Amino acid sequence: MPALNPPVIVLMTDFGLRDSYVGQMKGVILSIAPDARIIDLTHEISPQNIAHGAFILEKSSGYFPAGSIFVSVVDPGVGTSRNAIAIQTESAIWLAPDNGLLSSILQTRRVTVAVSITESKYLLPVRSSTFHGRDVFSPAAAHLASGVPIQNLGKSIDPATCIKIPMPECHTLDNGKTWEGSIIYTDHFGNLVTSLDTQLLDRSKKWHVHAGNHRHPLARTYGDAADQQPLAYTGSFGTIEIAIRNGNARETLGLKDGDPVKAEST
Amino acid sequence: MPALNPPVIVLMTDFGLRDSYVGQMKGVILSIAPDARIIDLTHEISPQNIAHGAFILEKSSGYFPAGSIFVSVVDPGVGTSRNAIAIQTESAIWLAPDNGLLSSILQTRRVTVAVSITESKYLLPVRSSTFHGRDVFSPAAAHLASGVPIQNLGKSIDPATCIKIPMPECHTLDNGKTWEGSIIYTDHFGNLVTSLDTQLLDRSKKWHVHAGNHRHPLARTYGDAADQQPLAYTGSFGTIEIAIRNGNARETLGLKDGDPVKAEST
Amino acid sequence: MPALNPPVIVLMTDFGLRDSYVGQMKGVILSIAPDARIIDLTHEISPQNIAHGAFILEKSSGYFPAGSIFVSVVDPGVGTSRNAIAIQTESAIWLAPDNGLLSSILQTRRVTVAVSITESKYLLPVRSSTFHGRDVFSPAAAHLASGVPIQNLGKSIDPATCIKIPMPECHTLDNGKTWEGSIIYTDHFGNLVTSLDTQLLDRSKKWHVHAGNHRHPLARTYGDAADQQPLAYTGSFGTIEIAIRNGNARETLGLKDGDPVKAEST
Repeated sequence: MPALNPPVIVLMTDFGLRDSYVGQMKGVILSIAPDARIIDLTHEISPQNIAHGAFILEKSSGYFPAGSIFVSVVDPGVGTSRNAIAIQTESAIWLAPDNGLLSSILQTRRVTVAVSITESKYLLPVRSSTFHGRDVFSPAAAHLASGVPIQNLGKSIDPATCIKIPMPECHTLDNGKTWEGSIIYTDHFGNLVTSLDTQLLDRSKKWHVHAGNHRHPLARTYGDAADQQPLAYTGSFGTIEIAIRNGNARETLGLKDGDPVKAEST
Repeated sequence: MPALNPPVIVLMTDFGLRDSYVGQMKGVILSIAPDARIIDLTHEISPQNIAHGAFILEKSSGYFPAGSIFVSVVDPGVGTSRNAIAIQTESAIWLAPDNGLLSSILQTRRVTVAVSITESKYLLPVRSSTFHGRDVFSPAAAHLASGVPIQNLGKSIDPATCIKIPMPECHTLDNGKTWEGSIIYTDHFGNLVTSLDTQLLDRSKKWHVHAGNHRHPLARTYGDAADQQPLAYTGSFGTIEIAIRNGNARETLGLKDGDPVKAEST
Repeated sequence: MPALNPPVIVLMTDFGLRDSYVGQMKGVILSIAPDARIIDLTHEISPQNIAHGAFILEKSSGYFPAGSIFVSVVDPGVGTSRNAIAIQTESAIWLAPDNGLLSSILQTRRVTVAVSITESKYLLPVRSSTFHGRDVFSPAAAHLASGVPIQNLGKSIDPATCIKIPMPECHTLDNGKTWEGSIIYTDHFGNLVTSLDTQLLDRSKKWHVHAGNHRHPLARTYGDAADQQPLAYTGSFGTIEIAIRNGNARETLGLKDGDPVKAEST
């Protein structure tokens, strides 16, 4: 993994920005690594929704410089015996609670080092039992950014033992004639993001997208629908999304997170 | 235009902070221009409200260092044939979809260079049809920050052909005895920001502000009203605002964006 | 106080992120101090709630590097005759309106210098009467970050004359057998943060926490309660919090900010 100068630390949490939690994390990081560039991926992961966090992390990390240090905290088990882990791949270092948040990273990348974060000299001296984002992950990431080798953070672990959760599905039961998935989440614009990965679809065919009692041809972009009309298209995560042109699909279509969706070739 | 070191890139979008869209843009920028300072002007422009974005950009840009690179994305036409443009003025570079977002910049500043952003080597190699903020505007801005001349981004265009939208009005029909305008938007505190530009008002006279069935003398500041009482004053954009002292005018006064307002001298 | 290189400016306001207010402040700072690191502590202090701001500032500032410059703006009296002040302690410089926002700093730290911010050459040349965050505090902080001595900002004042407000209480009437306080605020997760300071509680005893008609043993962490069950524990501010495991206590328990709470030993 290349070392970045200045180092880049990317934060993703479900802490929101209303409280001072994220600000405190940044204070801890700057106290240890004054040169670190700190970038907010987002702090609005749905509270304690590990699957949402794992999806956003997987779909976003490729846009950051190789050598970035990702701190991801969605942590309903904070203070229990769950591990805090750090893993290194060819392109990045990833710190998170061992609860599935790194599922897609563990499943799709080669892990070169994995450790349990336990070495107290790289953590805050006084640690709360409820805010390891500030007391464990931030100082550990900042020490990595300052050049501490990942192996020094704690005992080596076998990445195969780390917890993985099922990632949003996209499967076919008929050799690719139809693909089935679900609505993963709804974005700021009310667009419904699905798990249907467009790369799996045979591009020589025409496709329709079914959701609830709606059926839309797979369009190329917003401009392919009239104002206030619904459409399906490939969104910026590389998966199919359902939207209302210049409108809000969540409020209009009666669909919600978790609802099944299907792409059908014709 | 002076070159800043480190370069400053200012972001204004309607993407919100809930999703990872803004975080991805920053990742793209840092991958290309590791030294760039990235500042969020705001990401809460009302969704797809170009006029709101144009107003905020015009009223805010003077507070940034000369030489800043502004990336503004409110883009209901993304993926259609609308151009992505970059213009240079004496104080800054401005990137945006050609949809009116730069209206006030084009109308009030001398444009020294204007180009259509098309040169693929300065864009992401894989481009979605729905997220040019990440795939087009961020890499183009980062390359500018790294020293690429604006002319290299694409073909020169005539700034006179760029789309302009009407800016919020402030006009008089009686030689300055009264000025008419409208409520442009409501801020975080519930204060109603109007288009009535105080600099146009004859300061030797006393003024009253009319909105709905409310009429208030033009005060100097919040302190000129009693607790929970409404008042009109010159806000931080240089235009008249209507507020409730220590309260929320939007919730209390029954006024909304677009409602007409009038300043009358006495 | 150590000088940081690069300097660190920490912002805390009630401005929210929807408008361009915070972005404008950052533009002003970078125009004067291009190297300054600007960190958002939070911009979601409850509008005009000085007590909330004072609490967050006190509980958060210890996580930032010594030498940080804190700009805190919750300012219902902006434009009135209230002073803008800057005080220096052994670890930091603090700028704020003189309205109680620095209460806990003034009460718990040794102030080495205190001044009223009035020297116009360190402020914006045109100053609104409603947005001193941008026009007074940001440029003053940026000049400090650039090396201007705090004494140059204006006339020395006696810190004893600065306004203090009562901080959230935690008191005992029976020699420590019970401690009484209140709910201070509710965080992003719906957890109820109280003023009961765990350090005051005799750890050799068992404690129960009473709030409304609820009574909970003082637990160590979330994991000590079953899913969707309420619990009380020491939160990351060092005070007792009441939460629902994997749920939202604000929505579930019928308790609100200001409600009395009591810790009782058994």
